[in-house]
Parts: sequence; C-alpha cells; structure tokens
Amino acid sequence: MKRYERFADEIAVLIRTGVLAPGEKVPSVRHASRTYGVSPSTVFQAYYLLEDRGLIQARARSGYFVREHARRPLHEPEQHVRPAQTTEVDVSELVFSVLDSLKDPDTVPFGSAFPSPELFPLPRLARSMAQSVREMTGQAIIADMTQGNPDLRRQIALRYMVSGVRLPLEELVISNGALEALNLCLQSVTAPGDLVAIESPAFYATLQVLERLKLKAVEIPVHPREGIDLEVLADSLEQLPIKACWFMSSLQNPLGASMSDEKKRGLYDLLCRHQVPLIEDDVYAELYYGVQPPRPVKSFDSEGLVMHCGSFSKCLAPGYRVGWVAGGRYAQRIARLKLMTTISPSVPAQAALADYLQHGGYDRHLRKLRHLLESQQASMLASAARHFPDETRVTRPAGGYFLWFEFPQRVDSLQLFRLALAQGISLAPGPIFSATRAFGHCARLNHGHPWDAQSEQAMATLGRILAAF
Amino acid sequence: MKRYERFADEIAVLIRTGVLAPGEKVPSVRHASRTYGVSPSTVFQAYYLLEDRGLIQARARSGYFVREHARRPLHEPEQHVRPAQTTEVDVSELVFSVLDSLKDPDTVPFGSAFPSPELFPLPRLARSMAQSVREMTGQAIIADMTQGNPDLRRQIALRYMVSGVRLPLEELVISNGALEALNLCLQSVTAPGDLVAIESPAFYATLQVLERLKLKAVEIPVHPREGIDLEVLADSLEQLPIKACWFMSSLQNPLGASMSDEKKRGLYDLLCRHQVPLIEDDVYAELYYGVQPPRPVKSFDSEGLVMHCGSFSKCLAPGYRVGWVAGGRYAQRIARLKLMTTISPSVPAQAALADYLQHGGYDRHLRKLRHLLESQQASMLASAARHFPDETRVTRPAGGYFLWFEFPQRVDSLQLFRLALAQGISLAPGPIFSATRAFGHCARLNHGHPWDAQSEQAMATLGRILAAF
Repeated sequence: MKRYERFADEIAVLIRTGVLAPGEKVPSVRHASRTYGVSPSTVFQAYYLLEDRGLIQARARSGYFVREHARRPLHEPEQHVRPAQTTEVDVSELVFSVLDSLKDPDTVPFGSAFPSPELFPLPRLARSMAQSVREMTGQAIIADMTQGNPDLRRQIALRYMVSGVRLPLEELVISNGALEALNLCLQSVTAPGDLVAIESPAFYATLQVLERLKLKAVEIPVHPREGIDLEVLADSLEQLPIKACWFMSSLQNPLGASMSDEKKRGLYDLLCRHQVPLIEDDVYAELYYGVQPPRPVKSFDSEGLVMHCGSFSKCLAPGYRVGWVAGGRYAQRIARLKLMTTISPSVPAQAALADYLQHGGYDRHLRKLRHLLESQQASMLASAARHFPDETRVTRPAGGYFLWFEFPQRVDSLQLFRLALAQGISLAPGPIFSATRAFGHCARLNHGHPWDAQSEQAMATLGRILAAF
Repeated sequence: MKRYERFADEIAVLIRTGVLAPGEKVPSVRHASRTYGVSPSTVFQAYYLLEDRGLIQARARSGYFVREHARRPLHEPEQHVRPAQTTEVDVSELVFSVLDSLKDPDTVPFGSAFPSPELFPLPRLARSMAQSVREMTGQAIIADMTQGNPDLRRQIALRYMVSGVRLPLEELVISNGALEALNLCLQSVTAPGDLVAIESPAFYATLQVLERLKLKAVEIPVHPREGIDLEVLADSLEQLPIKACWFMSSLQNPLGASMSDEKKRGLYDLLCRHQVPLIEDDVYAELYYGVQPPRPVKSFDSEGLVMHCGSFSKCLAPGYRVGWVAGGRYAQRIARLKLMTTISPSVPAQAALADYLQHGGYDRHLRKLRHLLESQQASMLASAARHFPDETRVTRPAGGYFLWFEFPQRVDSLQLFRLALAQGISLAPGPIFSATRAFGHCARLNHGHPWDAQSEQAMATLGRILAAF
C-alpha cells in the first residue's frame, strides 16, 4: 500500500467515526502536511482519492469538506429490546420468493446477496484457472478430492497467521462455499430438535438451514453497531440447553454490526464457561473499510471451541464455490460429514484460487474493492438522505455492502418489496431475517454494485413508494 | 463408430454371454467374413482390437481363441437368500478406515472407488476450461449459480433424449457430483427415523448417508447378475412403511448386476402401486461394455416418481464435482434444498463440461474408455483365476470397473484388508457394503487402473494371503 493510500485511510477513519463531522472542512493541505509529517503531494493524492471514494468534496476556493449528504444524515437505528425467543423456523417460502425476484437481470439488484461480479478480477482469475488445469495431474485430482488442494490450504493458513490467528493446517476443511461449511458445522454439533442461538435479525440462510435440519432458533438481539447482546445471551445460556451459537461477530448480515475486541473476548469467555461451540460466520471479513482487519473470535480460541467459516465468494471469486472452515476440535467430524455429502469442492476451482492467491495480487484487489464499496456506501447513504422519509434510520457499517434501513412503523416492508418489484427494483424485506417475522418495517439494501443514474433513480422511486404509506 | 469396431463389439457380446465359450476357437476370418457379410479386413481389424482388449488371443498357425484364463474360470456367486432386514446404520468408522488406506499414492488401488484419472481426457478438458473461463461474464456467473449452466443442462437433456428418455429441462438440477444429488433426493422425501429400502450389498456411501440422516435401512438382497429381488421388495413394501427406495438398476455397486428391461418395468410398476419414490443411482450408466446403453428405470417414469442421478465423475471429469438429478415431481424441492446447502456446483466446472460435451468428442472418449475397462476386467479375471483359491467366486459385470469376489467362508475380509494393506495393496472389504456387516468373506476389487506387472504381482500377493486363511 502506498503512503498516500495509507494516509487517505487514516482520514477516512476520522470521517467514519465522526471525528471529522459531516460538512466540516478537512485540514488544508499545508496544515495536514505539517500535522501528519507527510509531503504536500501525498496529502493531495490522498484527498483526490477520498474525493474519488465520495467521502469528501472540493468547494471552489475553499478546499475540501466532508461530503455534503451527511449534513442531513439519517439517524442510526437502535437495538430493539426484546427477550430471546425460541421458535420453530419456517421462512423458506418467503426467502425463495425474494431470491426468485433477483433472477431478472434488468432488476435493480438492491435485494441481492452478492456484490457485482464486475468488481472482481475475473480475467486474472481465468488466467490462474487456465494455468492450473493445464498443469493438473490425475494423481493430484484424486488426492485433492479428499484432502483439499494443499497450496490453497497453506495460503489460507498464511492469511490467518498474518491476521494473528495461529492455525494448525489440520483444522482447515475446504468446502463448497461458506454455506456448506456452516451446514456441516451445525450438523457436527447438533441433532434434530436441538436449540441453536442465532442473531436477530439474522442472515436468512441461517434460518433456512435451521429449518431444514429441524433445529429450533433462540434469537439473540443484535445492536446495530455493537453486535450481539451478551446479557441476553448469558441469560439464555443459563436457562436453555443451547447446543451451539451461530454468530457473525464482524460486519454482521444484515446489520453490519461489528463487536469490539473486548466484547468478542467476553463472548468467547462466556461460551467457554458453558462449553457451547461457536460457529463464526465471517464471510465479510476481508471487506472492512478501515486500516485494520477486524479480529475474529477465533483469535481468542485456545480450546478449539470455535468453528471459523470463510469464503472467497464475496470478495474474489463468486461462482467458484470455494470456502472453508477452521474447525477447531470439530475439524475431523466436519471433514467426514463433507466426504459423506459432496466429497469435495471442485478441484480445478481450488487450484485456480491457490494460484491466484500466490501470484494474482489478492491484497491489491482487496484494497481497491474496499474503497469501491465504501464509496458506493457513501453514495447510497447520500441518496437515501435525499429521497427517503426523514424518520428513516439507517446503519453505517464499517465494511461490506449492505445497509439496513428502519422505516417508519407504518411501512410494511413486504408490501414495499412487492411494490418496488413491480417497478423493477428488488430489496430484501426485514421479515426474511427473522424466525418470528419481526422487522416488518425494515429492509436490507445492497450497495455492492457500481453507483449510477439508474441506482439514483431507483432510490427516488423507493422514496416515492415509502411516502405513499 | 467404425464398422470393425461395431463388429468387434458384437463378438465381445458373444464372448461375454458365453455363446463363444472360454478357450473356444473364434470363427476364422474367412468364415466370419462370409457369415456376417463383412470384408476380411474388417474381421482382421476387429480381431486385433479384441486381442488388444484381452478378450481373445492368437495361437500360432491355429487362429484366434477366446482367451485362455477363462479355461479355468472362477464361478459366479449366487444370491444370498436372506429376508429383508431393517437396521440402524453405523458403518462410517469402518468406511473411513478403508478410505484412509487409499491416501498413499504408492498403494495398489484395488480398494479405490474411482477409475484411474489417466483414463480421462484431462488435457482436452483443460482446454475447454481455459476457453470457458476466458469468455465467462459476471452476469452469467451469478445467473448460473441459481439455475445451473444452461448449455450444460441442454447437453444433459440431449443425452437423455438420445437414450430414449424424454425430459423436461425443468426436471434437471445440477449438483456437486451425484453424491450431493442423492443426499438431496433422500432429504426431499424422508424425515429422520423413516425407512428406506436399499440394496444388499449396497454402495457404502448409501449407508453413510442413511446414518447421517438418521434413516433406517431395509436391505433388499441383490442377485449378482439379475439385480434386486423383486419378491422380497414387494413383501417389504406390503409390510413396512417404506418412504423411498435407493437402487442402482444398472451396473450396481458393488455387484455389477444389471436388471433386465422387463424387471425394471416390474420394479417401476411395483413402486407406482405403492406410490413410493425411487432414487435411481445411475453413475455407471456410460460404462456399459455392450453395444446398447442400459435403459434406466427413469425411462418408464410416466408419473415423475423417479429421481434419476448421474455424474461426470466416473466417466469423464473426476474432481470437477458436477453431477445432476432428473428429479421428476420432486425437482423443485430438490433445487431448493440445494440452494440451502451449497447454493451451486462450481460455475467454471459446469461451463468447462458444457463446452467439452459440445466440442470435445465425448462419445469417442467413452468408446475408448469402455474398451479399456473391459480389457482390464479380462486381465483381472484371468489373474484371479491364476492366483485365487479355486472355490473363489467372482462376478462378470457387463460394464464398470468393479469385480465382487466371494472367497471361501474361512476368509475374514476385514483381516484380509489389513494384511493386504500391510503389503501395500488396498481393497474394499465386504462388510462396508452392508448395514448388518454381512459379506464378511467378500471383497470388491477395482480394475479401473491400467493393468501392469505391479497389478499382477498384487493379485499374486492377495492369492498368497488368501491361501493362508
């Protein structure tokens, strides 16, 4: 990372955390150069970059200001105070009707679960793929099927090491995307009828998986910024025979909440006391906007109690379907379950990713991707402030490509979903994120696609529909 | 297919069905030419081919004879008369210890479930892969994830049509190999605790899947040549609340049995009467030795009661992990279950196979592969006749790459497995093919690898171990 990029990231953190308030003037080039001990040209380049990312804007003869939209920002939502609830899960029909709505390529994909594949280095990946399959031996194909591609395993372990997690290679199981890993983790520690603690709101696939495996959900409320409510969790663990927790401790889907390191340690200690395993869904880990990657709960895991699931689908190679789990003490059980269900993820896809991670410039790609997503977030936030009702609340996640909107109580988000779809706009209505069909006035919007006039228009249309409620 | 190849196949059928007895003289070139109305050079070429495949051998100045090994052929096994049994399944540990034994590349892989990857057109596949990923658009990646690659779906449907099965495209679900398809089929029609009719002996993964899903097995005996015992099945369907059948109607694993078309229709009618769905595992369909592909039960399926599962793993592209199911009336349920567990098989792998099926020469490859496997079967049969105890019985499947050996009762095949492994030879002991741990004196041997001096030596070693029992 270049000097000016690092400096730009520092300023971006100041903006995001509110140290530099919306509408406020950014330090002048001379001032910044002196204060931070960097050359004026570095400051210039950093400001250009931040302007490019939509975080600041130049005003003629006055210098740079934190971008205007934030002058009438929408408020952030609060945590809904609700006790933990235990529920049989039955959301699949609803979720599938939302997923079906995404099939039409002409729909504005605010409801999508993926960022635009145009953000990914597909041509470079194609080269890695062509190269790997050309060199692939029959021997390796058979071996990689049971054990996973050894280079890929090493590269993944290396990335853990760099981010401060020491991982014996044996803990790693390569899977068909993170979703398979999550499924296998859950099956390795539960039986039908068991209770599993999940977040509320939760990723809808979590609910579907619980439904499929006939598990019961104990929904733990999540604060939109600070993550899981540990007090409610502690009570639930005390009172209920919870067999596992399935949480996203960083960039939670759909809220974007990230727990502090202190809170993550608290969570780990709590689970250790009860000896309840944690399935840590960390598929957005690489999409943080700040300078530091968020630390996973797995980094505190001295007892092998955490199954940490990751994937390349959201940050590099959608459709390759390669993910993994660092399975702790459950690794062997998970590996065997995998052999019994799909045997192995595609061997060529594994090899292509291994080659790309070694030679493709993954970190460079990630930096670019993070900046694009942050800039698109700023655009969507600004657009929402322009078009949505004033009482609307919205999250400000420090990463990823989702915003969670809390509309006025009179808004029925399922109806909003249908009305918007009729106008060619998809969105993810709140109730698909809850076993109890809560969040009826909320919705998740995806800003993972390049922001353009069509996006802006779609936001205006949504604003009009919202106003009519 | 060339004229002489077709003629060779006809002669091969005569040999396999015993019309031309072991050791018997094959018609002279002149005689054959006149009888069958083909040119002498066609006969010559056909005989060279059959010699190449190990089915006949030339004797100086006497012409061609059906190959010698068959002069003291081992007998075929009989069906074990046993009533259907209902059992909780618990074989995984045993199976995994066998699978583990295959990891060492220096082991003679008689225990393997795959044919040698050297038999597959890996370089041609690599070209298809390189080409497809180069042309792949972001749009297509996302679309193919939910619906599967449309070209691949069409190519598969086309192959069904050619083999006489009319299939609406909507019935097809592309999966992570056949094993995932089989898992999903089972889950779409059963709940934990349900009864499922399976074969005895059965493919061990069947047993593992039942165990994992907490289903109970009703084991229906299989005749080594004629397949499932329909009378036992009829009784079981009458008396027990069987929720599904999981059968291989052609080239059953491990016996290699293929039901006649008449019997297949009988099976279908029986299941229709009881409205019990059939999961038809047909992964060896393309590996028949004769001139005609075996007909699947699916070809009789007028009511959508049959879920027909296929795969490219055993005949074209191991490690790509692409299979499918023609799911009949259960197709949508299966597709949704797949979305909830792995979302999709690898998109590049799907595209590569679609390209290969269109342009790669699949049928040419399959013809070559079938001949190689048939020749290797002849070699293993000959070698067994030379080295194994006289009382040994062995199947003669009309396809695939497995032989099922029934050793004298005094042989403990689990002990045989351990002793052989100590000598660097793997095999699949009988008990892993049964929930009741039957078949303790049987074993499945793989002849899917090019036959060489090491194979011959390994058979001799096995013979010595067998003699010591």
